[in-house]
Amino acid sequence: MSLDESSAKPHERLAALLEAELAAVKRVIADRMASEHAPRIPEVTAHLVGAGGKRLRPMLTLAAARLFDYEGDHHIRLAATVEFIHTATLLHDDVVDESARRRGRPTANLLWDNKSSVLVGDYLFARSFQLMVETGSLRVLDILANAAATIAEGEVLQLTAARDLRTGEDVYLKVVRGKTAALFAAATEVGGVIAGRSDAETRALHAYGDALGIAFQIADDLLDYGGVTETTGKNVGDDFRERKLTLPLIKAVAAANAQERAFWERVIEKGDQQEGDLEEALVLLRRHGALEASRADAEAWAARARSALAQLPEHPVRGMLDDLLGYVVGRLA
Amino acid sequence: MSLDESSAKPHERLAALLEAELAAVKRVIADRMASEHAPRIPEVTAHLVGAGGKRLRPMLTLAAARLFDYEGDHHIRLAATVEFIHTATLLHDDVVDESARRRGRPTANLLWDNKSSVLVGDYLFARSFQLMVETGSLRVLDILANAAATIAEGEVLQLTAARDLRTGEDVYLKVVRGKTAALFAAATEVGGVIAGRSDAETRALHAYGDALGIAFQIADDLLDYGGVTETTGKNVGDDFRERKLTLPLIKAVAAANAQERAFWERVIEKGDQQEGDLEEALVLLRRHGALEASRADAEAWAARARSALAQLPEHPVRGMLDDLLGYVVGRLA
Repeated sequence: MSLDESSAKPHERLAALLEAELAAVKRVIADRMASEHAPRIPEVTAHLVGAGGKRLRPMLTLAAARLFDYEGDHHIRLAATVEFIHTATLLHDDVVDESARRRGRPTANLLWDNKSSVLVGDYLFARSFQLMVETGSLRVLDILANAAATIAEGEVLQLTAARDLRTGEDVYLKVVRGKTAALFAAATEVGGVIAGRSDAETRALHAYGDALGIAFQIADDLLDYGGVTETTGKNVGDDFRERKLTLPLIKAVAAANAQERAFWERVIEKGDQQEGDLEEALVLLRRHGALEASRADAEAWAARARSALAQLPEHPVRGMLDDLLGYVVGRLA
Repeated sequence: MSLDESSAKPHERLAALLEAELAAVKRVIADRMASEHAPRIPEVTAHLVGAGGKRLRPMLTLAAARLFDYEGDHHIRLAATVEFIHTATLLHDDVVDESARRRGRPTANLLWDNKSSVLVGDYLFARSFQLMVETGSLRVLDILANAAATIAEGEVLQLTAARDLRTGEDVYLKVVRGKTAALFAAATEVGGVIAGRSDAETRALHAYGDALGIAFQIADDLLDYGGVTETTGKNVGDDFRERKLTLPLIKAVAAANAQERAFWERVIEKGDQQEGDLEEALVLLRRHGALEASRADAEAWAARARSALAQLPEHPVRGMLDDLLGYVVGRLA
């Protein structure tokens, strides 16, 4: 694949640069999702992995290794590890959220059943664990074990905080770290660790992935209220209809007067939604500047990620990682 | 606790010998199941861990370490690791089986919901992973990663083979390795690995745990048709009502004539069970000697476990591990 640098999106340019390595990751994934005895496993996995996705997480691992001109092959295993962990959490998330669609296809829990999604998720998590053990790096294992715990803790927190209007921005941030940023941070960091880099550099990689993940998630939350259906594949108002306490909503609830608060209690806590409620929610979000404030937060996280990048050596890949930040926040322009 | 050696059961004598270490394991479990942000996690975990159980798996790790007079403290972490993995699989199993009771209490999926069971299980699995990384032993990580993959694969296989009368003894054995024996084997093996023992010795520990686990599971299957409600806490016929293809049933189906096969198809495949069907099933199991043949299999596995023990050094703990085998199969007398 050769892409015109000026027109391609940053993640597409990264994918073009890392094409051979991404193909190797794909082979490892196909190889390791096989199961001689339980064909249900590759069926379910292939359904989800085959549907694509931007593969940002494995790309972050490969990019970090490339940034230091790493010449081994453990980064391939680690990129596959990260994709397996991500796929396992998607399978479990769709059971927990009772989702019907993912990446434009019916979810595995709908096509097969919840049982298959739970158990195949467990299998992929175990496989990811085998892959990382093969790298022989205890530091890598430590980072990924901590990420796995943060992810699961964030998911439980999200479950208990769901639809609870008392949820503040501090809890939101912990949930987002679990949902998105912990794996972004670990994926980026292990690419540098496997390349044998210094603590200062791997800390900077972690900080970049963490801040990128948070900016990315805030952008996602905003787009759900933003009417850019074409580029995200999401319908505007999905989060509202699912009564999710995303950042814009948390900000609007914090600024609500008594009448507005009653509205939020009805539509989010009680889930009693009527025709015109989404439009009313958008009015309230705009009244309190909740969308603009969320966008400013996303930009502040992008700036943090950028200053982490500045601690890393000059390299074409560093430029692409910088462009990726611009793209994530730029979607909000 | 001091127990009369002659009257106490083997697992009670092991528990008495390892009392101080089991208390330390309990402290590690209480410490690591905590979550500052998501109180749902310790609630769900404590409900299950607090209900007790024989703690056979952590005891196997502690016993193996004691067998070699290991003097460090990593065996405590590994015993807690093994208990966390076991607890995580129980939480997920109860979701998959839609179970209502476990260890004499309502299941977590019933008291809270399936979502909590899935996510808290994921959290405990991640915590177990952190604990084993702390031992710094790549060999231990490799063994436990492989066990986790075997467990998950066995669960998926059980799901797809369930209620399928074509299931043979080879598939049964794979399912049992996943359900029980893989973790028994890994739990025992890592106790020797952490004590720094030779490959021949750790292989013997693995073989002992594997064969003990298989004998244990076959005994469990038999007891479900055996009418010993008091000692197992299980009601006779539970497996039959849940249409589980356990070893006695697989043997009876293999020997069935056309009329008997029609009966099994109705009650297991179609699930159309009527008054008197359990009694009829017991008649067929006895007619083909399926219970006796299963018991002989359990004894053959116990004998294999015993010959694995013979490769290990003389030690009071070795005697107790031997007695444990006698007890597991002895329950069938």
